[in-house]
Amino acid sequence: MCRGDDPTCPAFEAHHRRFAEDLARERRAFLASRFAANGGAARLAAGGLGLPRPASAATRHHHLPANADTVHWGYFSRSLRPQLEVRTGDLVTIETLTHQASDDHERMIAGDPGAESVYLWTKDRKGVMRRGAGEDDGKGLGVHICTGPVLVEGAEPGDVLEVRILDVALRPSANPDYRGLAFGSNAAANWGYHYNDFLTGETREVVTIYELDATGARNWARALYSFRWPEIVDPAGGRHPTIDYPGLPVDHATTVRDWGVLAGVRVPVRPHFGVMGVAPREAEAVNSVPPSYSGGNIDNWRIGKGASVYYPVSVAGALLSVGDPHASQGDSELCGTAIECSLTGTFQLVLHKANALEGTPLEGLDFPMIETADEWVLQGFSHPNYLAELGPDAQAEIFRRSSIDLAMRDAFRKMRRFLMTAKGLTEDEAISLMSIAVDFGITQVVDGNWGVHAIVRKDIFPA
Amino acid sequence: MCRGDDPTCPAFEAHHRRFAEDLARERRAFLASRFAANGGAARLAAGGLGLPRPASAATRHHHLPANADTVHWGYFSRSLRPQLEVRTGDLVTIETLTHQASDDHERMIAGDPGAESVYLWTKDRKGVMRRGAGEDDGKGLGVHICTGPVLVEGAEPGDVLEVRILDVALRPSANPDYRGLAFGSNAAANWGYHYNDFLTGETREVVTIYELDATGARNWARALYSFRWPEIVDPAGGRHPTIDYPGLPVDHATTVRDWGVLAGVRVPVRPHFGVMGVAPREAEAVNSVPPSYSGGNIDNWRIGKGASVYYPVSVAGALLSVGDPHASQGDSELCGTAIECSLTGTFQLVLHKANALEGTPLEGLDFPMIETADEWVLQGFSHPNYLAELGPDAQAEIFRRSSIDLAMRDAFRKMRRFLMTAKGLTEDEAISLMSIAVDFGITQVVDGNWGVHAIVRKDIFPA
Repeated sequence: MCRGDDPTCPAFEAHHRRFAEDLARERRAFLASRFAANGGAARLAAGGLGLPRPASAATRHHHLPANADTVHWGYFSRSLRPQLEVRTGDLVTIETLTHQASDDHERMIAGDPGAESVYLWTKDRKGVMRRGAGEDDGKGLGVHICTGPVLVEGAEPGDVLEVRILDVALRPSANPDYRGLAFGSNAAANWGYHYNDFLTGETREVVTIYELDATGARNWARALYSFRWPEIVDPAGGRHPTIDYPGLPVDHATTVRDWGVLAGVRVPVRPHFGVMGVAPREAEAVNSVPPSYSGGNIDNWRIGKGASVYYPVSVAGALLSVGDPHASQGDSELCGTAIECSLTGTFQLVLHKANALEGTPLEGLDFPMIETADEWVLQGFSHPNYLAELGPDAQAEIFRRSSIDLAMRDAFRKMRRFLMTAKGLTEDEAISLMSIAVDFGITQVVDGNWGVHAIVRKDIFPA
Repeated sequence: MCRGDDPTCPAFEAHHRRFAEDLARERRAFLASRFAANGGAARLAAGGLGLPRPASAATRHHHLPANADTVHWGYFSRSLRPQLEVRTGDLVTIETLTHQASDDHERMIAGDPGAESVYLWTKDRKGVMRRGAGEDDGKGLGVHICTGPVLVEGAEPGDVLEVRILDVALRPSANPDYRGLAFGSNAAANWGYHYNDFLTGETREVVTIYELDATGARNWARALYSFRWPEIVDPAGGRHPTIDYPGLPVDHATTVRDWGVLAGVRVPVRPHFGVMGVAPREAEAVNSVPPSYSGGNIDNWRIGKGASVYYPVSVAGALLSVGDPHASQGDSELCGTAIECSLTGTFQLVLHKANALEGTPLEGLDFPMIETADEWVLQGFSHPNYLAELGPDAQAEIFRRSSIDLAMRDAFRKMRRFLMTAKGLTEDEAISLMSIAVDFGITQVVDGNWGVHAIVRKDIFPA
C-alpha cells in the first residue's frame, strides 16, 4: 500500500480530489456566514485596535474575520483554498476563535455573528462540518479553529515566512450583559498530563471558565466558575461522556457550577496564539494537535504581541493559518489546555526568499523559530518532523512516541546549530555558552509531539 | 548482605567507625590551614560585604572560611564533625570554593591561603585527602568542595531548615596581577549532555576560563581562553586522560590555549550556589553529584541572593553544607558545569520546628523548596529520594535511571501538593492553575538525578 501523501501513488489523485470535494461542500454549507463576515469586520473596525502605521504607502492592510467561511477546524491542509492573498510586507488583522467557546455559549458565542456561524450546530445543519483530519466529518482528530489560510504571493518551499505579531487584542463578549468583559475556558481534559494521576484515582474532566477585562485595564484573569464535564448529547444524538469532539454544546441545565472556584486568585494574562503555522507538504489533512517543523500547535506563550515567528515554507504560497488563541498558559500546558479565549491579532508577513538566506540566521531553518524583543526562542519537539519520521501511521504514532527527553535532545541540537550558523560560533563555543547562558523549558506535554524550547538572550551578542 | 546504612546490621558499627576515623585522619593532615582560616576571615572582613543588620541584639554573626579544615570534598555525610554550631536566627558568612579552580591555578588559587590549603597536592601531601564518597580517598565519586557542615542547635528530623541568602559576593583573585577580577571555569565534560552527540563524533573535553569583574560594576562575564583537556598526570603519578577526579592540577605547559574564544560575547552573571543542603540520613557517605530531597547539587540558578531554600531536616543538627559556587548557569547546565567560580555567601538560618508546621506551607515538606522575591520554585527530581528508592546500589543506579520525563512527573506532583497544602486549593483548582500559570523548566540534565522545577508567581495569591 502506498502512502496518501505520495504523488506517485495511484490512489493519491483520487484521495486528493475526494478531500478537495469535501472541503468545497463544506464551504457551500453555510451561506449565511457571508453576513457574519461583514458584521465581524465592521465590529473589529469599531473596536479601535491600536494598529501600527503601514511601513510604506505600498503596504496594504487586510482584514480576515473569523466565521464559518474563513476557518478550518482541527486540521491543516496544503489543499485549502486561501482566504486571503497577500504580498510580502502586508499587514493582516486576523480574528481567531477559541474552539472551547461552546463551554459557555452565553458568554463566548451569543451575539457574536462570527462565532455563531462557526458554532452553529442543529439537527440539520452544522456551520462547519469537518472538524479534524479524519474521514468524513474529521472525527475530531484535531480540535483547533484556525482562521485562514493566508497565501503569501511568491512563497515557495525553501523560503522562510516571518510572521510579526504587531498587536493582540481580547475579543470582547458580544453579549450586552457582559459588556467590557472577555471570557475563556480551561478544560482539565482526558488528554491532560494529570489525567491518569489523580490523587483519588477518580478520573474526571473539569472545565473552568475565566473572566478577563476586555479593555485591558486589568492584566489578570479570575476564575468565574467550574463544572465537571457532563455527558453531552450533541444535536445529532451522539453521546459524549468525555471531551472527544470539538464544539460540543454544553447545556448548563445539565451541569453543576461551582461559582466559588479559585477565589481571590489572579492569573497573569499573557495573550498569545497556541496555533500558528504554515501548511505542511507531507500529508493531505494533518491533525491540528501535534506541532511540527511547520509550526501549528506550538503552545508557547511567548508567541504573543511583539514576537515574530519564522517558518520554513513547505508548500507554494505558504498557507498561513492562525488559531487556538490563549489568554494565559504556563510552560507545560499541564491539564491539556490554556485559558482558551478568542483573540484578534494584527500581523505583518515578510517573505524571505531562499536565495537571500545564506549567511543569515535563517539559513537552513527547518523549524519554527521565535524571536521576542529580548530573546531568541528555539522550539524543539519529540519528533522534529513527525509526519516524515514516523511512517504511514505518523498521525496516530506520534501520540504514542513522545517524551520530554526526546524534545530536549532536539532543542539542544537546534540551539547548537543556531549559535554556530547565526552567531558564527564553533561547536565548542556553542556548547559552553549553552551551559551557562541558555535556559531550556518545557513548552507542553499534552500535544502528542511534546515540546522543549531553548532561550538565549539577544544582549549576549552585542552589535 | 545487610546495608551499610542499617544500624541493625552487624557491619554498621564497624563501617561507621572506619569512616569516622578516615575523616579524623584527614582533619589532622594539614595543620597549616588554621593560619589560612584566619587569613581568610580577615580578608573577607576587609572586603566590606554589605551585610544586613542582625535582626536583634541576640542575633550572632559567624564567619566560616573555606580551607582544608573546613571543607569536605565530594560528599555529604551525617557523620561529619560540625565546623560551626549556630542557633536559629543566626547569620553566617560562608566562603565557598569552586572545585575547578585548578583549571587555572594562577588566577583562582595562587595567593589565596584558603584555596591553596585545599588544593595542596604534592607527591607526599594532599590538603584534602578524601575527594568523593568512595573507599579510601573517595575515588572522585563526588566532586564538589563543600564548606561546613553547620550544625543548627535543636534541629531534629521532621523540622524544616530555612536558609535565607542575604548576600552573595564573587571571590576576587588573590593574585595581584589580576586585582579586581574574579575567574571561573566551565568544563564541557564527559558527563555533559552533549558528550555522546558531537557533530563530528570526535569526543573531547574543553575547558573555558571566564573573567568577571569582582567589584560587581560589570554584570557580565567574558570568555578569556579555552583549552582541550590534556592528559593530566597527577602528583601521585596517576594518569587522567579525562576529567575523572576533582582538583587535578592543570599544567598549562601541556595545553594549547585559544585566547580568542567567544569574542565579544557577554554572559549575564547570576551568582548562586550549585550545592547547598543538609546531610541525608540514608547513607554514611553520599556522592555530592546527585541532588535529592535533602538538597545538595540542585544546580538551580535561582538559589542566589534574595532567595531562601527550605530543607527537610534529616539528621540531628541538620548539618548544612554549601559549595559548588556558580557565577552563571543556564537551565539544564547542558555541558556538565556552569561558570564554576568561588563565592562567599551570607546566610540567615531559621529553624522551623516540626510542631509548628501544621497549616503552613512547610507542612509535610519532603523536598528542597525555593522562595525568591517573586516566586515559589518547587524542585522535582527523576527520583525524589533516590537513596531510599533505588536499593543498596542507589548511588550507582541513579546514574542509569534518570530522565526529564520522570522529573516532570515529580515536579507536577509537588506543585499540586503545594497548591493544595500551602494555598488551600482543591485538586481540580490546583490542576487548572498549573496549566495556565505555572511554568515548568529543566533544571539540569547532568547530575545523575535530573531536575525539573515548577515556578508559580506569588502575586497570583494576593494577601
